[in-house]
Amino acid sequence: MKIERPRGTRDFLPDEMEKRRAIEAVMRRIAESYGYREIATPTFEHLELFTIKSGEGIVEELYAFKDKGGRDLALRPELTAPVMRLFVNECSVMPRPLRFYYFANCFRYERPQKGRYREFWQFGVELIGSSSHLSDAEVIALAYRIMDELNLDFELHIGHVGLLRHLLKDIEEDRASKIMRLIDKKDVEGLSSYLREINAPEELAEKIYALIELTGSRDVLVEASRLIPDFDMSHMEKLCDVLDSMNVNYVIDLGIARGLDYYTGVVFEAYAKHGLGAQKQICGGGSYRLTHLFGGEDVPSTGFALGFDRIAEICEITPPQKPVIVVVNVGFEGEAFRIAEELRKQGFRVVTDVMERNIRKQFSYANDINASFAVVVGKREIESGRYTLKNMVTGEHYELSFEELVKHLSREAQLP
Amino acid sequence: MKIERPRGTRDFLPDEMEKRRAIEAVMRRIAESYGYREIATPTFEHLELFTIKSGEGIVEELYAFKDKGGRDLALRPELTAPVMRLFVNECSVMPRPLRFYYFANCFRYERPQKGRYREFWQFGVELIGSSSHLSDAEVIALAYRIMDELNLDFELHIGHVGLLRHLLKDIEEDRASKIMRLIDKKDVEGLSSYLREINAPEELAEKIYALIELTGSRDVLVEASRLIPDFDMSHMEKLCDVLDSMNVNYVIDLGIARGLDYYTGVVFEAYAKHGLGAQKQICGGGSYRLTHLFGGEDVPSTGFALGFDRIAEICEITPPQKPVIVVVNVGFEGEAFRIAEELRKQGFRVVTDVMERNIRKQFSYANDINASFAVVVGKREIESGRYTLKNMVTGEHYELSFEELVKHLSREAQLP
Repeated sequence: MKIERPRGTRDFLPDEMEKRRAIEAVMRRIAESYGYREIATPTFEHLELFTIKSGEGIVEELYAFKDKGGRDLALRPELTAPVMRLFVNECSVMPRPLRFYYFANCFRYERPQKGRYREFWQFGVELIGSSSHLSDAEVIALAYRIMDELNLDFELHIGHVGLLRHLLKDIEEDRASKIMRLIDKKDVEGLSSYLREINAPEELAEKIYALIELTGSRDVLVEASRLIPDFDMSHMEKLCDVLDSMNVNYVIDLGIARGLDYYTGVVFEAYAKHGLGAQKQICGGGSYRLTHLFGGEDVPSTGFALGFDRIAEICEITPPQKPVIVVVNVGFEGEAFRIAEELRKQGFRVVTDVMERNIRKQFSYANDINASFAVVVGKREIESGRYTLKNMVTGEHYELSFEELVKHLSREAQLP
Repeated sequence: MKIERPRGTRDFLPDEMEKRRAIEAVMRRIAESYGYREIATPTFEHLELFTIKSGEGIVEELYAFKDKGGRDLALRPELTAPVMRLFVNECSVMPRPLRFYYFANCFRYERPQKGRYREFWQFGVELIGSSSHLSDAEVIALAYRIMDELNLDFELHIGHVGLLRHLLKDIEEDRASKIMRLIDKKDVEGLSSYLREINAPEELAEKIYALIELTGSRDVLVEASRLIPDFDMSHMEKLCDVLDSMNVNYVIDLGIARGLDYYTGVVFEAYAKHGLGAQKQICGGGSYRLTHLFGGEDVPSTGFALGFDRIAEICEITPPQKPVIVVVNVGFEGEAFRIAEELRKQGFRVVTDVMERNIRKQFSYANDINASFAVVVGKREIESGRYTLKNMVTGEHYELSFEELVKHLSREAQLP
């Protein structure tokens, strides 16, 4: 009986893993160049960590279960809440700001479709301890740099949930949350029928429609100020100044509401321009406050998560391929294994026969796995101390001592 | 209300993560030098994958749950069964042998104690397609090389479950399994009382006791042949020949039974000589057959898993530390952010103020995070195009153009 993998999950074969690791390496390198350091949290957490403030959308999709001690646990659907839990429990006395990054799998029970999986990966950062526009600038620039370095064709949108929350300040919290979610889903029809349903004042509805349409260069901030005069726009203006001086390209988009309830200020999203269809969002983030809900003091933070799987789908990175050398064993397996090991210690990638095959079949396998070189180890080679090296691409042969072999392969078979 | 992390799980802070990543990098490098390539499987699988043949021990400790569609799932307790499932589903027509490695977290619901966690990591390999002694030799040498390269003080024990299974061939399967488990746990008392309980013949019991005491140099193979004359010892002898020619140090130990039921031939374990107390096993592996149970043809394989967390606990690797450069912003945040970004693009690790702090506090934070250099960006620097560089360790100051700055830092602030 064939056992399939669970629906909505994936296996990754070597070619794909190498590509994913190459992308991950770029993300790590850039995040580390900004002084961020990696942390890791458990794959499952107490359920309540995610029910407190993550928003209805996520909670419905949780993989929740009880352990044998009867405790309610859940596979993490995202990393911000776990990182804040870690901060409260273990890092609250460290010098601030703290700069953390993570690369981790998350789980959501949703209908599998292109770009949506039940187990998926996020690369993200959290900058903990500051609510300055400079925090937003740093985190946005870092996200931008990663996507730019990966040669993605994307558009970065920046907004501020404070504007919408300001408009909704007299609406009760549940209703305001629902309005934010409808805006997040760009469900304009649902929004207008809900606003009618709760008898929202006409003037408020008009302002909401106008605000979420405001998209473009930073000039739209002036229009937003005209629409909502008592909102202080200086945070956004200063943020744009810093991003402009760093040559970060962005679109101001005051209709960004984000799916999670914990954002408080600047929010941003990035969309791939092609290749992903409807699931084109590849980055989401913003400034938020969560620590006080987890038993800590109230500490402002800013962060983002990159949708690793979607980025892997559209990124055209070519992982470096280290050539393979096959040591062909002609009746002297111990010596063939020893030579192979010596070559590995010199930094080469070396494969030997483990099937007790004849020479012809060993060469045939070398072809199957696209080996670049074959080194023959037989009686003649052992007696003379000179090994036959065959270039599997050109067919050229050489007779070389072990030292000459290493020298030749160092020129030809190291990483490009 | 403070939310704790679930019992038996861990958070990893940056210093520990860097150490773990450095250890992982060594494991990857060695595995890749043997031609192994990385694969990944889902974190959870259908429950039945683990109940078929993993043995009673593992199944009792599974994190099992139902998803919202009523399907029985389990967090993986180990990787061999998932990798074989992947092989059957996706790789059965690829040229053999196949060489895969993985680095992945596993889950077992057991009493947390030193060296035992509910979420833990394994680095492992599977060599699929061969039952030759050469497969065993390659996989054992690879495990040995990794532990040796990490400077671990360990002892590698090699046995063969075929000997015990040969002795137990007339005992019914459930009973034989139970005997193997008692031997695996080194529970001699439990073993002798169980053998009495099932009325095992006295001669058989004596042979079992004698066999599991056989530990030492490869000479004990001769004694084992005397004890069980009709067992073909040539596989073990040839394996030892190859390992000897590769200078792999090992102890023959015919009492190794392994906790999992699917092993069929050579088995091996490595133990740390100190630092881990009772949980000293850091590696386990052997040859096995699983694919036919998962709906594929019967394909022999050999593999091992390294206990990553235990190895991290005793390994004294020092991860490379890239120096941190702080760009101090004296009233020109845009320019400070721009200079910081330029330096990052040159390969440096650069941190800037995001708290809108004064100069004194920015220097104080630079000290807190052990920055090696500070670059001051203020009015004078911008007007003259010459930046003040301060060595935070020696206190030396320099006035440098941007190009001179990069040159100076390239000498002093790249990776050691």
